[in-house]
Amino acid sequence: MGPIHHVAIVVRSIEDALPRYRSLFGLEPEAPPMTFKPQRVRLCFLPTGPGHDAARIELVEPIDGESGVARFLATHGEGLHHVCFVTDDLPQDLDALAAADAELIDRDPRPGAHGSVAFVHPRTLNGVLWELLRLEA
Amino acid sequence: MGPIHHVAIVVRSIEDALPRYRSLFGLEPEAPPMTFKPQRVRLCFLPTGPGHDAARIELVEPIDGESGVARFLATHGEGLHHVCFVTDDLPQDLDALAAADAELIDRDPRPGAHGSVAFVHPRTLNGVLWELLRLEA
Repeated sequence: MGPIHHVAIVVRSIEDALPRYRSLFGLEPEAPPMTFKPQRVRLCFLPTGPGHDAARIELVEPIDGESGVARFLATHGEGLHHVCFVTDDLPQDLDALAAADAELIDRDPRPGAHGSVAFVHPRTLNGVLWELLRLEA
Repeated sequence: MGPIHHVAIVVRSIEDALPRYRSLFGLEPEAPPMTFKPQRVRLCFLPTGPGHDAARIELVEPIDGESGVARFLATHGEGLHHVCFVTDDLPQDLDALAAADAELIDRDPRPGAHGSVAFVHPRTLNGVLWELLRLEA
């Protein structure tokens, strides 16, 4: 499994955040922010290097109060939310994780912004919410 | 600035965590855990891909109760702690960040595990503790 595809940060407003990522760190979005309705969020990805393997920053903004991301923002405020690994075979990885007693939020892959995804509960390993991503061909 | 060099996770015990990273995600440490006395922590880096640009997972374990990391663990429990960018010119970046009213924990570079480093306060941008790293030549 690997490399890290992105590190997600929950923000109140992508529009407020983007100019600061540009001015402080020189990061530019790879595409305009998009609304991802299944998760009730807006998303924006900022590559941190030219290489295919360089991890991205993902900004995540809730579009209403009904999502896990909205609850995270209300409880914790803005901050680090999850880490996403690329994988070549998501169903096989989920089987292996289930067999290793990982607590899977998604036992089966579901559609994500870049391909099919599944989340692993923070109780599984060091309080971190892990996402696994099978990139679309 | 970029790419992301590592994403740091505070853990109670690197020895307890490592076998789980291996069995769940297939990640192996790039070197045995090391004690970094200036920060009163033990560290272990897990590459997530073969490429030079692939981000690492950094496991951080406090060696006593006297560090910021120990206080983080006592307050928040295990979890995501900071994100580290590689930079080519750390003093210049710190000057630019100071000029942009970033809140710098370190106004001047100090020695880190992989080179010279400086931290940017989470109040600066989206509640995230940012580390900047100038790799040793």
